[in-house]
Amino acid sequence: MVQLWLWIGVFSMTLGTIFFGIGAHNGKNQQWKILYTLNFFICLIAAGLYLGMALGQGVNIINGRQTYWLRFFTWFCSTPLLILDLTFLGRTNLLTTSSLLGANAYMIITGFAATISPRPISYIWYVVSCGAYVAIMYLLLKPYREEAASKHPRSKSAFSKLVTVHLILWTLYPIVWVLSPEGFSILNQGGEAMGYTLLDIASKVGFGFLSLNTLSTIEKARELAPDRQMSYQ
Amino acid sequence: MVQLWLWIGVFSMTLGTIFFGIGAHNGKNQQWKILYTLNFFICLIAAGLYLGMALGQGVNIINGRQTYWLRFFTWFCSTPLLILDLTFLGRTNLLTTSSLLGANAYMIITGFAATISPRPISYIWYVVSCGAYVAIMYLLLKPYREEAASKHPRSKSAFSKLVTVHLILWTLYPIVWVLSPEGFSILNQGGEAMGYTLLDIASKVGFGFLSLNTLSTIEKARELAPDRQMSYQ
Amino acid sequence: MVQLWLWIGVFSMTLGTIFFGIGAHNGKNQQWKILYTLNFFICLIAAGLYLGMALGQGVNIINGRQTYWLRFFTWFCSTPLLILDLTFLGRTNLLTTSSLLGANAYMIITGFAATISPRPISYIWYVVSCGAYVAIMYLLLKPYREEAASKHPRSKSAFSKLVTVHLILWTLYPIVWVLSPEGFSILNQGGEAMGYTLLDIASKVGFGFLSLNTLSTIEKARELAPDRQMSYQ
Repeated sequence: MVQLWLWIGVFSMTLGTIFFGIGAHNGKNQQWKILYTLNFFICLIAAGLYLGMALGQGVNIINGRQTYWLRFFTWFCSTPLLILDLTFLGRTNLLTTSSLLGANAYMIITGFAATISPRPISYIWYVVSCGAYVAIMYLLLKPYREEAASKHPRSKSAFSKLVTVHLILWTLYPIVWVLSPEGFSILNQGGEAMGYTLLDIASKVGFGFLSLNTLSTIEKARELAPDRQMSYQ
Repeated sequence: MVQLWLWIGVFSMTLGTIFFGIGAHNGKNQQWKILYTLNFFICLIAAGLYLGMALGQGVNIINGRQTYWLRFFTWFCSTPLLILDLTFLGRTNLLTTSSLLGANAYMIITGFAATISPRPISYIWYVVSCGAYVAIMYLLLKPYREEAASKHPRSKSAFSKLVTVHLILWTLYPIVWVLSPEGFSILNQGGEAMGYTLLDIASKVGFGFLSLNTLSTIEKARELAPDRQMSYQ
Repeated sequence: MVQLWLWIGVFSMTLGTIFFGIGAHNGKNQQWKILYTLNFFICLIAAGLYLGMALGQGVNIINGRQTYWLRFFTWFCSTPLLILDLTFLGRTNLLTTSSLLGANAYMIITGFAATISPRPISYIWYVVSCGAYVAIMYLLLKPYREEAASKHPRSKSAFSKLVTVHLILWTLYPIVWVLSPEGFSILNQGGEAMGYTLLDIASKVGFGFLSLNTLSTIEKARELAPDRQMSYQ
């Protein structure tokens, strides 16, 4: 059951990698190429993760539980790229972008601490990690969205949709965690594997499509960044 | 004794995090927000470190000594931000900034090698790590200070003070190391914990205040970076 | 035999570090200083690696083979700087530079997975890692070279030479791997140490000289980046 979901992950992420890779190669201008390339690397990292897990690697018995610690290593690499998807589309300033990246790194590292710590210390780290996530939510809902809207007034609703979908997907991760054997053991190993795989497909491949859709909306509204600005990117 | 100092660390760093976090939120312009945010993350990382150590984590018996290896991991994350404090205030060019960050990473990694190596190999790494620190001292005293002074002639003395305080604090770290059980065992575990905690509070919370004070001096001298330049940051 | 080659590595890399360090200090302008500094850090990282290995560190018995895992950690730090050598000289855009850095990180991490995995899983990771290397080859031969040539039409052949030498040297690494005890055991430990040491000297110290030579060619062809652009670097 776990194994099946891991191979579904390998297959979906590889498809996503190929799709975004072709897009990056054929992108009609630098903006499209950048966005496709970000999504390409997000799926490529996840494909490596699922391949490793499907081969029986990246997992150890920690505190009596079978723990896929490799997930955290690859999330640490891929989640910054997901945030760059958002900030690239929104033309977010350096302060907000760095704050998002910092809060995200803190969330992943303390989430990893929660996963490898024995109870009840794991719950302390879980709360700290959720605190970092609340900071991400605030940054996306307030400064990120305001800046994106002020720079793209005609595409305002596209950004609201993007942020909403992103936050719904990311909120489901700590819910799977708390239901999994690392938390209150309501899900078994198979249920946990299914939950994370489906979430990863939705938040990497699915969200990648949504980001392309958003760029298309911005383009149709003629709110792309001017060429001069592109040259710095 | 060790435990008490670790909880003092948690408490002080949390206070620092809250203080700088509020400052980042209320900062009157982008420059103040950036500086507060850097100090916010420096204290946040240290708060996580002390929480972990106080919970009995991040410590192992290595070469017969109780070794808090977690310190090195968090220093690796927080010291680059301390250097960015300095280079942000000084509007340092990319070459000097990168050289400082590179020498700093080298210093921390070889310092970590010194801590986990058996004697006498540990002394070799200690000397290498001190060599990297000498490079940092040179970079701060020469190219950093000259560039800061040439860009802020009226705030020159503020930068001399900033660099002097920074170097005094950082020089005390290898002195604590060499006196600690990892070095010549003149300090016991409790003394080492006290030394590092006091240094961390001074060089993170204390130095954060000094950096704010320096920005205020630059502002009063009307030597802030022009708005155009800010937009790239 | 292994030990001798490791000390040859320490000696050569230290010489390289000193040479490029003096060059960075005396560089006649920012461009030369940047290039010397990149090569300085590349040799400095490698000197630390060889010192560690010569002291008997960074090596463990993994899957019954003596495995110098420390190589991969230091390659992870030094290879991005080698790529920055190339992209700095070529004034490569951010998209190509980031793609090269991303593919390189993927290659090193999956190459590390190949090294620490038991057979036959190690062969799967070896193929994945070679796939990432093919991506690097494509990026250097196509977008990198085209952009460098279009920005430096008179130094076109210097870039062809630079890319050719780089690719020949990097192609030899996976060949040593596959011949070594981690692969098909055609080389013994001593042969592997010799192969990697000679490659490291050629691709770090030697390639550093070639990069200086290339900058000199660009300068003589009066195709250096204008000052305005330098200020962003």
